[in-house]
Amino acid sequence: MVKKYIIGNGSIISTEAVVKDIEPMASCAPYFNICGNQMSLELMSDDIVYGLGETLRGANKRGWKYVSWCSDDPNHEENKNSLYGAHNFILIDGVKKLGFFFDTPSEITFDIGYTDPDKLIISMESLNLDLYIIDGEDSPSVVKEFRGLIGRSYIAPLWSFGYQQSRWSYPTAKDVMEVVDEYKKSKIPLECVYLDIDYMERYKDFTLDATKFPNFKEFVNNLKDDHIHLIPIIDAGVKVEDGYDCYMEGVKNGYFCTDKDGKPFDSAVWPGLVHYPDVLNPAARRWFGNKYKVLIDCGIDGFWNDMNEPSIFYTPDRLTECIDFIASKQGKLDLNLDEYFSLTDKLRELPNSKVDYGRMYHNASGKLINHELVHNLYGYNMTRAAGEAFNELREERTLLFSRASYVGMHRYGGIWTGDNKSWWSHIELIMHQLPNLNMVGFLYSGADLGGFSCDTTEDLLMRFIELGMFTPLMRNHACIGTRRQELYQFKHTDDFRNLINLRYALIPYLYSEYVKACLNDEMLFKPLAFKYSEDKMARSIEDQLLVGESIMIAPIYKQNAIGRYVYLPEPMKMVKFRSNNDYDTMDLEKGHHFINVNLNEVLVFILPNKLLPLAKPSMRVEDMDMYDLTYIKNGNDATYDYYMDDGVSKEPNGSIRTLK
Amino acid sequence: MVKKYIIGNGSIISTEAVVKDIEPMASCAPYFNICGNQMSLELMSDDIVYGLGETLRGANKRGWKYVSWCSDDPNHEENKNSLYGAHNFILIDGVKKLGFFFDTPSEITFDIGYTDPDKLIISMESLNLDLYIIDGEDSPSVVKEFRGLIGRSYIAPLWSFGYQQSRWSYPTAKDVMEVVDEYKKSKIPLECVYLDIDYMERYKDFTLDATKFPNFKEFVNNLKDDHIHLIPIIDAGVKVEDGYDCYMEGVKNGYFCTDKDGKPFDSAVWPGLVHYPDVLNPAARRWFGNKYKVLIDCGIDGFWNDMNEPSIFYTPDRLTECIDFIASKQGKLDLNLDEYFSLTDKLRELPNSKVDYGRMYHNASGKLINHELVHNLYGYNMTRAAGEAFNELREERTLLFSRASYVGMHRYGGIWTGDNKSWWSHIELIMHQLPNLNMVGFLYSGADLGGFSCDTTEDLLMRFIELGMFTPLMRNHACIGTRRQELYQFKHTDDFRNLINLRYALIPYLYSEYVKACLNDEMLFKPLAFKYSEDKMARSIEDQLLVGESIMIAPIYKQNAIGRYVYLPEPMKMVKFRSNNDYDTMDLEKGHHFINVNLNEVLVFILPNKLLPLAKPSMRVEDMDMYDLTYIKNGNDATYDYYMDDGVSKEPNGSIRTLK
Repeated sequence: MVKKYIIGNGSIISTEAVVKDIEPMASCAPYFNICGNQMSLELMSDDIVYGLGETLRGANKRGWKYVSWCSDDPNHEENKNSLYGAHNFILIDGVKKLGFFFDTPSEITFDIGYTDPDKLIISMESLNLDLYIIDGEDSPSVVKEFRGLIGRSYIAPLWSFGYQQSRWSYPTAKDVMEVVDEYKKSKIPLECVYLDIDYMERYKDFTLDATKFPNFKEFVNNLKDDHIHLIPIIDAGVKVEDGYDCYMEGVKNGYFCTDKDGKPFDSAVWPGLVHYPDVLNPAARRWFGNKYKVLIDCGIDGFWNDMNEPSIFYTPDRLTECIDFIASKQGKLDLNLDEYFSLTDKLRELPNSKVDYGRMYHNASGKLINHELVHNLYGYNMTRAAGEAFNELREERTLLFSRASYVGMHRYGGIWTGDNKSWWSHIELIMHQLPNLNMVGFLYSGADLGGFSCDTTEDLLMRFIELGMFTPLMRNHACIGTRRQELYQFKHTDDFRNLINLRYALIPYLYSEYVKACLNDEMLFKPLAFKYSEDKMARSIEDQLLVGESIMIAPIYKQNAIGRYVYLPEPMKMVKFRSNNDYDTMDLEKGHHFINVNLNEVLVFILPNKLLPLAKPSMRVEDMDMYDLTYIKNGNDATYDYYMDDGVSKEPNGSIRTLK
Repeated sequence: MVKKYIIGNGSIISTEAVVKDIEPMASCAPYFNICGNQMSLELMSDDIVYGLGETLRGANKRGWKYVSWCSDDPNHEENKNSLYGAHNFILIDGVKKLGFFFDTPSEITFDIGYTDPDKLIISMESLNLDLYIIDGEDSPSVVKEFRGLIGRSYIAPLWSFGYQQSRWSYPTAKDVMEVVDEYKKSKIPLECVYLDIDYMERYKDFTLDATKFPNFKEFVNNLKDDHIHLIPIIDAGVKVEDGYDCYMEGVKNGYFCTDKDGKPFDSAVWPGLVHYPDVLNPAARRWFGNKYKVLIDCGIDGFWNDMNEPSIFYTPDRLTECIDFIASKQGKLDLNLDEYFSLTDKLRELPNSKVDYGRMYHNASGKLINHELVHNLYGYNMTRAAGEAFNELREERTLLFSRASYVGMHRYGGIWTGDNKSWWSHIELIMHQLPNLNMVGFLYSGADLGGFSCDTTEDLLMRFIELGMFTPLMRNHACIGTRRQELYQFKHTDDFRNLINLRYALIPYLYSEYVKACLNDEMLFKPLAFKYSEDKMARSIEDQLLVGESIMIAPIYKQNAIGRYVYLPEPMKMVKFRSNNDYDTMDLEKGHHFINVNLNEVLVFILPNKLLPLAKPSMRVEDMDMYDLTYIKNGNDATYDYYMDDGVSKEPNGSIRTLK
């Protein structure tokens, strides 16, 4: 049951996150004590607080303060408050199950037991938002109701479940081919190769550097003949350069964000000075989305949208100010403490500053609106621009995911979890993020496997892969300057090949569960509390996940571990996989188990009376037979409702058959 | 059995880490394959590699690359290679047990399965070092032999086992008194309050800001009457200021490090420009150590030495270069990528640069030697300066610990683990650091409880305290600008009081085990592998520790955890403490257990036939009766060899009595 309440003056503009028309209640919002710019609620000691989608720390968000403010911050440390997304949904799973959606495009803070361990305190500079309150029988039904409210999730093509390799950068066609060839030589399946910013001509969106990629269209199509998809990055900022069509059109038509006087707003990112497309203006959004056509016409069928928080390295005024300030210290040899730190501070405060966001404006439905107030909608609408255009430009599904997001964007694309690090703790983090992302509709998602920044190690990458093999987006991605981490770079290539073969064998199951979750407003990754809500132990577990209806996973995320503890809320069949065709099974009782797990092994637990179908892997998804399946069954009467479709039709045209 | 080998030309100067005269072997070093500037060794798959003292990541160091290079880096993230200490001891615990001490004052790199999972590769720019190889029956005897080689560990006063409160800063006498009064009001025991850099007059060592601390001596002694010890910080750098005695004497006598022309070397830290005392020069070391007298004469009986890596914020030349470079960009509004990042890079490269270290010189035994080659000896010798002086200046033991260190410094003082963060992962980190620190002789040690930088939360602080209550140095310390984290700042003051009372009740046991470990070259904190070397499960555990001869601990380091798994390699008696006089006990079988643990509870496991003595807590250690003990016994015949002394005599004068 959903009820809507207007808090303060309500959301400053419609975020278009919600797709249903709901009449606001005349009464005050229940549960909350509203006072000034805060609304607060008492938490019971056993309440789990889920939600907030892409955030740091545990799956249970209690004990920290989170700020919804889309941020390009590559240091995903425990103490950070914001990441790239703004996903203002909270689910309290206690004696009652309650969902809250705080719908506002502005910054909003969730103090979940930080100030007071027993209080949830929500605050904004001015408390104006649309509040949706959902109660239900259980957590899954609260989520389902919420998901119905915000509309069906984006559905990715089947081929995008293949293994994907990325790096900042494979800057030339030759580099791309080397990756493709090395994977082939190592007999490891590969589906996509990514192009990071260097493929463009001086970082100009929708251009190609012809020296690095001569005959781009031919190159794309040659790869495609081999069922390899090339996925270029699109950045939000459009380079300021006389004669560059995208820039010229944007200026001419007033499609860029402006300063308060209506002049295109100057900021700088990779290309140097850029203007930001005003994606909150429907005309500009349509224009920008259609720009993707130039790449689509070359045969490109997938994109990743980046730097769309939007990220600002600097604005010319504040850069000038900063450099002038530092220059004013010229000739001083004995800086005192404050002076010395002010140098670093000045430069540190340059990027992604609220001062700059506060000077940028949108033309949203004819109304000039300050960017700071609607900041969290930018990435959403950039991706919506692409998604809306693809609906017209392409016959088939397009792979699309974004870094920044707000609820609502899930209808147009997925997300990746941004610039993580080659840290063991970042394997664990994925497990906490996935279910919370699923709650707000982001089903096609995944983390940079192996870790984006910092140097990886072979064992870390292998453990990343062993979790990532369950995520729809399974992409290995790394930063410039880090150790190379393609799977063929390491000593135990055989283990990596076996693991990727296992991923491919799992694709029918994963895709089936994924599409069913999209169509039925459900979650692909569920905390154990969603199924075993009366089991106190199960409720506390954050490092095991239910994946679809048949299985539970328990990844390893500690270096040098010889195994791990696993709790079974009911008897299950354990499968210890080394590859699709090399595994052991064992029936385990309900309760606590320590399971020995080698570095090349993956644990899967099959639920009672469920079965896990496995396909024969191939070097490409397109070459696989999705109906030639073997089953691992837990129980003679085990069944599975298997969904499959053609994998590309925009409106899923498949059907369910019951496997047994 | 210890053997010494000279690798290359041997250590460039004697580090004086080793106190025994050992004739080098004429033969080549066994085990290693030496090639160019590398020496490497094959690792077996079951080998655990302990050692390296204060480093990041696991207790088992396999799977990363570590660099011994004393570094002031406050970001203790998984991917970092260096911390403040240089502790070049490696213990391979496999079929054979082998200890290696790579004695060199220069930078040295330990690639422990980073490049190749099965190889230990040691490298230096030029491979010159003294190598000590120790083999033994088991890991404890290898460590004991090594510890005998490097000399007896510093022994701290008994009162320094009390609870200590610190912050950057309590800048005035009034602030200190507020802390003392609030603890008193909350009836929480408190032993020491720390003075961070702001007590000094413009950050000048051995001065006092008389406006902040009028009548300092009286203030110190008033606190002392109440058994509260005031512990000031001493920084390594001496401010350049005409008329300041420490500066004038140092210049006059040539006691400062110089540039290549013999002019005192200019660098900058908190006070602005400083010179670094040349603590490698025995005369300068003696002079600097004796400067502590001015504070000792005020009644001070404890110090912490900081910034002694040594940390350099900038040197005037390179600051000029940096500012000039940035100023050269004045007027440019459209910086390209490289130009933009070069601004930040220039400033980032300013502090702690090898360029600067390479321009600084020591006068070590009459020989001019470049600082870069002996960098890792600085903190060691600054602390040695103090330790040697205290031997002459004080009748009793002095509390002394340092941030930077090298093996050998353990004879003069302890260490704290530097600027950690209010991160849950940093609770876990302590468990990995303690045994490795103990191996190299650092027994009086501890981490900043609650976390130094970032904002803490009540539950995080409580879990930090629940581990920190077992470390000799039990200090709550936090950075300027962070949330206040004195124990009285939170909601559950009663829980904190109970926990600190428990700490005080444990002091007889902890102090007894600590002094015994000092006197017998043993470890206070041991990995389970040290006792249960044939138990594969026990060998893999990094989050349980043996503390002395009677107990094992299993701290909680996950937010919102309702308990944790514990593995018992043999049957033990579990004690679930809420306070010294409020606990439950339960006899548990060998094997795996999931133990429910509330936020205010501490798990202690008593080994078979051992007993844990508990004292009656008091507001101060001095007020406690160390012989009025109650016992928790595991078995009717349980005994414990209890050591106690007067707690202050420099040469421990106590005796052992067997409790039963």
